[in-house]
Amino acid sequence: MVTISPTVERWGVHEIELAGPADGNPFAEVRLSARYQYRNRIVEAEGFYDGDGVYRVRFMPDAVGPWHFTTVSNVPELDGHSGDIEVSPASEGNHGPVRASGKDASGKDASGKDFEYADGTPYLPFGTTCYHWTHDMDEERERRTLDTLAASPFNKLRMCVLPTGAMSPPEVPFAGQDPDGLDKTRFNPVFFRHLEARIQDLLDLGIEADVILFHPYDGGVRGVEDMGRETDHAYLRYVIARLSAYRNVWWSAANEYDFNRSKTVADWDDILRAIARLDPYGHLLSIHNGTRMYEMAWIYDNTKPWITHQSIQHWDATLTDTWLRECPKPVVIDEISYEGNVGKRWGNVTGEELMDRFWEGMTRGGYVGHGESLAGFQERAWIGNGGALFGESPPRIAFLRRIMEERRDGTVVRYLGRRQQAHVTVDLPADGGYAVELIDTWNMTVTPVDGVHRDRVRVGLPRRPYLALRLTRV
Amino acid sequence: MVTISPTVERWGVHEIELAGPADGNPFAEVRLSARYQYRNRIVEAEGFYDGDGVYRVRFMPDAVGPWHFTTVSNVPELDGHSGDIEVSPASEGNHGPVRASGKDASGKDASGKDFEYADGTPYLPFGTTCYHWTHDMDEERERRTLDTLAASPFNKLRMCVLPTGAMSPPEVPFAGQDPDGLDKTRFNPVFFRHLEARIQDLLDLGIEADVILFHPYDGGVRGVEDMGRETDHAYLRYVIARLSAYRNVWWSAANEYDFNRSKTVADWDDILRAIARLDPYGHLLSIHNGTRMYEMAWIYDNTKPWITHQSIQHWDATLTDTWLRECPKPVVIDEISYEGNVGKRWGNVTGEELMDRFWEGMTRGGYVGHGESLAGFQERAWIGNGGALFGESPPRIAFLRRIMEERRDGTVVRYLGRRQQAHVTVDLPADGGYAVELIDTWNMTVTPVDGVHRDRVRVGLPRRPYLALRLTRV
Repeated sequence: MVTISPTVERWGVHEIELAGPADGNPFAEVRLSARYQYRNRIVEAEGFYDGDGVYRVRFMPDAVGPWHFTTVSNVPELDGHSGDIEVSPASEGNHGPVRASGKDASGKDASGKDFEYADGTPYLPFGTTCYHWTHDMDEERERRTLDTLAASPFNKLRMCVLPTGAMSPPEVPFAGQDPDGLDKTRFNPVFFRHLEARIQDLLDLGIEADVILFHPYDGGVRGVEDMGRETDHAYLRYVIARLSAYRNVWWSAANEYDFNRSKTVADWDDILRAIARLDPYGHLLSIHNGTRMYEMAWIYDNTKPWITHQSIQHWDATLTDTWLRECPKPVVIDEISYEGNVGKRWGNVTGEELMDRFWEGMTRGGYVGHGESLAGFQERAWIGNGGALFGESPPRIAFLRRIMEERRDGTVVRYLGRRQQAHVTVDLPADGGYAVELIDTWNMTVTPVDGVHRDRVRVGLPRRPYLALRLTRV
Repeated sequence: MVTISPTVERWGVHEIELAGPADGNPFAEVRLSARYQYRNRIVEAEGFYDGDGVYRVRFMPDAVGPWHFTTVSNVPELDGHSGDIEVSPASEGNHGPVRASGKDASGKDASGKDFEYADGTPYLPFGTTCYHWTHDMDEERERRTLDTLAASPFNKLRMCVLPTGAMSPPEVPFAGQDPDGLDKTRFNPVFFRHLEARIQDLLDLGIEADVILFHPYDGGVRGVEDMGRETDHAYLRYVIARLSAYRNVWWSAANEYDFNRSKTVADWDDILRAIARLDPYGHLLSIHNGTRMYEMAWIYDNTKPWITHQSIQHWDATLTDTWLRECPKPVVIDEISYEGNVGKRWGNVTGEELMDRFWEGMTRGGYVGHGESLAGFQERAWIGNGGALFGESPPRIAFLRRIMEERRDGTVVRYLGRRQQAHVTVDLPADGGYAVELIDTWNMTVTPVDGVHRDRVRVGLPRRPYLALRLTRV
């Protein structure tokens, strides 16, 4: 045992550092965990080899007060270390990990269609995507990405652990010569330390890291789409041991899982069960579909018990009603087409189109994710590599986020859609008088309609699409 | 025999006027027709009672030269009248009735997905809709409607014979006291003379009259949705006897037939067969669906032999591919939602949305219809009562019509859709060099792309949706 901090805040990262054997293959041969005890409850956190004879166990405590830990290992020098730590209350801004809640964002009981932090604070995901923003280890661009995120409405980021086959990054997750001489039974601590630092950067910004464990973009270069069950599981075990103590981590088992032609749905079930078993904290866990089975029911069966929320690729946000009806778990349409101008089907909708889909999805009780694939503005687009944003949607997503977060019990937001109508008649809830405001979602204005209304209100509308109404009980 | 013109032009209206009995119920009791003979071919045209002891037979000759006619009647004074007429060549602008063609608009063989006039001139329907523009007999508004049409791109008009239950028009198709004392075994010549005059007005403007024989908007007021088979057929016989000699008439058996809850599909089959049998000229014949069976296959089975083209209500123009694949008859999406601002699902899309659907449908080989339901501009909207147009789509439909009519063999128009992309790569036909033009369908511009291109061309695009490419073999 080298250094152990005796204190940590609730939902912070407690780390045990130990010296141990460096010979053989420590990744495969050494088992290490720590049993953290709080009163009559024990949580076992898996450790990992960090290279150069250094072993670590990371742990996220979820209760304030005294904890005791003891290490367990098949190597005597790592086994039986113990100690006491004091977990202090969470500092300001630390609300713990996000989970699916049984309440909606306004506090009403709902069938698990929303999210909240562990301390009960509502969390409304406004996600974006930079799949490979960490792989180049380009410090300047990573800093620019973080600055962009800090100034943006986004509080969740989808990002991949594995590079694509087309990339030649300075470090990859596996040991050995990239790409042909990789040893997938060993991992690359330099790669992971960098990845963790970026996840910590996101945590510091209050941004959830939706970590994508597999993707189908290898093109056979590193063989990571078809490593075999044992190697897949060793990879999952290592990643989860390293990252799961970061409270802002979500697990996305795969991006576009159905485009991986060497894995079956049963294989994915097995992977998802393994993640759920290996993660001692029950981080959010989902799997994201592609469109291989276009026009069929290609979305993973999200009613399976290990799935915490529905991570969906689909262009039609109005299907949110169906998804919520058929599966009582939050809907996150992570990919609904990106604001962009590339030739691919997934990346060339206008800002108007994207915002229309955001409003359709979010006023139906779902959540919609952002991405930007605008070519011609920087060397690579945001969706792949981060950097800066050039689209028209981010300020409008910020506006939408404000409207959504301002909702209280007694607030109803009704989106009127891409169609235009001269008037709309709305039946109001029978529980009182309502103030009515007209929202122009594109121009980001909120205009009060005079008076307090009961039973029914008829509102004159300008000749424009993309309007909404906010009804507030007074 | 009172007066008979000895000459008529090809596809003009030849009329025989006869005096006969005015007692009893001439509509039901008197049968009259005329057998028109040209060489070894006889066409029998049904006559009709026009009130006040006057009977008429109208006939549209389809061949130039000498014709001979003889009347046939169960009333001696109407029977056996005969005469000779000389049919002259069609005057300029008279191309005869429209029919489904076996060629596409550029002259290539196609599986009956296009239309042409009887003289072989291509006809591309650019339809609009004024369901009840004739019912009020408001001469000033009818004149305004005709002036609007004359200045518009529209060359087809959907219009109803029957008023709606909500209307109290000065004249209705049936005799007796409207609405409660109607005698549906008798017709109202005043109503029909007015209707015919408007159809003639449309003919003079080169506009096809898509005459809707039944609709489901009676609300039980006149009982015209459920008159019984005998009365339905007498009504059809009378309307067809009066109108079928006008070369610009098309028969639309019903609007939104599926909303009529007292008729089955078998009833509609019977009505359609009756129309096909009663009409000696084989005018275009279709039936237009509503959306009662929303999300199911609610469109009439247009493969049935009496149907000449597919008259469709649907919002998704991209289904044109499917409809053409499943049924080798022209597709006319008469109702794709109207440019408007009313509260109804069918009437509040923006100009952009409507134009996007027009381009999607028409570049897939279908035809799309226009309607305008903009409230707040005149007392009633164009879609119901005509008058003036206030929307943004008509000039853009004129632009689209020009692009479509300019196509020749060797022209390809590719619509790029509502999405935006920085570049598009197009594989060119292998038959030669191609000139490429970029079309902005909304801003109505055509911009040449430099050079003559072979095999493949990559075209840079502005950051806008609603673009198209025109490829012309040079």
